[in-house]
Amino acid sequence: MSLRPSVAVVGATGLVGQEIIRLLDRRRFPISELLPFCSGRSASRLLFHGRAHDVREVSMPALRKADLIFLASSEAIARRYGPPLAGEGLWVIDDSSEFRLDPAVPLVIPEVNAHTLSFHKRLIAGPNCTMTGAAVVGQALVRAAGARSVRIASYQAVSGAGKAALEEFKLQVLRLAQTFSGRMPPSETRLRAPIPVLPRRIACNLFPQVGRFDGGGNSSEENKVASELRKVWGLARLAISVTAVRVPVLRGHSLAMWLETCRPLSVPRARALLRSSPGVRLWPGQTYPTPIDVESSLPVHAGRVRRGTSAREICLWICSDNLLKGAALNSVQIAEILIRRGWLSRRPTRGSSMELKSRRWWRS
Amino acid sequence: MSLRPSVAVVGATGLVGQEIIRLLDRRRFPISELLPFCSGRSASRLLFHGRAHDVREVSMPALRKADLIFLASSEAIARRYGPPLAGEGLWVIDDSSEFRLDPAVPLVIPEVNAHTLSFHKRLIAGPNCTMTGAAVVGQALVRAAGARSVRIASYQAVSGAGKAALEEFKLQVLRLAQTFSGRMPPSETRLRAPIPVLPRRIACNLFPQVGRFDGGGNSSEENKVASELRKVWGLARLAISVTAVRVPVLRGHSLAMWLETCRPLSVPRARALLRSSPGVRLWPGQTYPTPIDVESSLPVHAGRVRRGTSAREICLWICSDNLLKGAALNSVQIAEILIRRGWLSRRPTRGSSMELKSRRWWRS
Repeated sequence: MSLRPSVAVVGATGLVGQEIIRLLDRRRFPISELLPFCSGRSASRLLFHGRAHDVREVSMPALRKADLIFLASSEAIARRYGPPLAGEGLWVIDDSSEFRLDPAVPLVIPEVNAHTLSFHKRLIAGPNCTMTGAAVVGQALVRAAGARSVRIASYQAVSGAGKAALEEFKLQVLRLAQTFSGRMPPSETRLRAPIPVLPRRIACNLFPQVGRFDGGGNSSEENKVASELRKVWGLARLAISVTAVRVPVLRGHSLAMWLETCRPLSVPRARALLRSSPGVRLWPGQTYPTPIDVESSLPVHAGRVRRGTSAREICLWICSDNLLKGAALNSVQIAEILIRRGWLSRRPTRGSSMELKSRRWWRS
Repeated sequence: MSLRPSVAVVGATGLVGQEIIRLLDRRRFPISELLPFCSGRSASRLLFHGRAHDVREVSMPALRKADLIFLASSEAIARRYGPPLAGEGLWVIDDSSEFRLDPAVPLVIPEVNAHTLSFHKRLIAGPNCTMTGAAVVGQALVRAAGARSVRIASYQAVSGAGKAALEEFKLQVLRLAQTFSGRMPPSETRLRAPIPVLPRRIACNLFPQVGRFDGGGNSSEENKVASELRKVWGLARLAISVTAVRVPVLRGHSLAMWLETCRPLSVPRARALLRSSPGVRLWPGQTYPTPIDVESSLPVHAGRVRRGTSAREICLWICSDNLLKGAALNSVQIAEILIRRGWLSRRPTRGSSMELKSRRWWRS
């Protein structure tokens, strides 16, 4: 294996996959060969380093040619390719939710818990895009004052639901605009996509449902945010309550977060901690980020740092580009650590590779 | 004075004023004469009971002809006309924030605290539109289990900022739609209104600023929600933290609310309490209201009743039409109570009227 790895991207035509390829280019990630794959639906071509690349249908033999694989696709794709290829010693960075809570898989946000990366754990999970902002911003505060409870209300962009949802949203906006300009009578049915991806109308509307509800009434997104936060912060029993809401925004997730600490934490101290937190851009004074401010921006943005319900609670406003820090950028940052540590140029010895292979990776 | 009062509406051409007039008609409010006023900017005509009415510029002599005055205008208008006319024995129901926290003025949500209405307190304040949903829904739960703390993240419609803001929003949607359809290149400056009313772009965006910020970093809206909730619930020292956010929705405010109770409160018990709460429509199971569901709807809608961070916390999703229950409808409901109690047909005796006049109404 050369020092410049061969890099595969699965889901290369999706919103996150496209951003991964763009970031690999912009950040001059050392690369010998790019192998873009789609998950079968839409083979096509893309440009990388000025050269056209065919986007091929993903397959096990094709992926074996890579040293590093970014999975930016479904849970099913992650299940099929992640464990066997990592077992063979390839590095796999998966952006799906499939392995995030697996105790054998590090769930990594570089600014928060890069120490959980291991030379022998070649399947690495990237975090949920909604929890990433909370994890990065809350980290320094939790270290300084402990954490008693966390409450989060989210304002999640439509791009978090994928390309089809984004098209559905834009179509609804176009039709609503015709209504506003008087060219069309208002009609709820005209706003419906033929096969809707989103559970409710999103243009000029919003809904508190991201994913499916469990028996306790929490949505899968709310459960992901809570359990992934507990894992990356290493606080297995932290009390967390989340309300996840989809809003009519193209790109950029926002969070209203209340962090109850174990010890008192003043607002000036919290601001000082955030100013020196890696990956955080703190907005000065009473200014605040909005979704359009953080589009294509790498850090997590925080503002409106205030006292919550007591001297032991900080209230914050957080925005981040859900396709970048919560997804593509985070994955590329993990790969950059692997490069820096020299791990990408060495395969594990047979023994440890076997150990990986023998794990029961597949879930029933 | 006849049993059918003469009714003035100040701000009759505004969003809330128009709704008041519509409700007076639909709810067959007994009325001898409608006197619609504007606050000087835009004299015009409107239809009521099938008859055209001139909307005249507001003045003290003109208002004196009314028995009941709805103020749906600014704080300045409330200050100028509310106290002197109430002092003369006219009933004044003010929807501005000017007198809401005045200890001498009842702040009334009929389902919550109609008992604070008094024959001798003729200036009555209607509540902030954002806090109304929380007040109505939380009321029964707080009565049953007490209240330790409240956290609210809001999703507030643009109509809450008035007519000009709504026009600004629609213009931005029209221009964004041209971008989506490829007819115009994307440009941030094209989206700006000539004289913007809103602090940031709102189409496909949102911002955590409703009103101005105080020294502690809270916005005026956040302070209103907290202090008005304390007043209508009669819990002067309740810990409340609010994050108020404007979202690209035309009409209908939504809230994610966490209510920490003094005693444990199960989710089934909370649901049972809400089912029998006046003015509340509880959505069954895991269904939930969205802004477009509550447009023109009178009750406050609640759904997604869940356990919060502990057995002493309930988490809820609330939607209400901000122009109705949080404004026009609430004012008309107050007036209906005055009618039912027979208070609108009697002026107070000279003694108590003088007492009202002598109060220091004006604020520095």
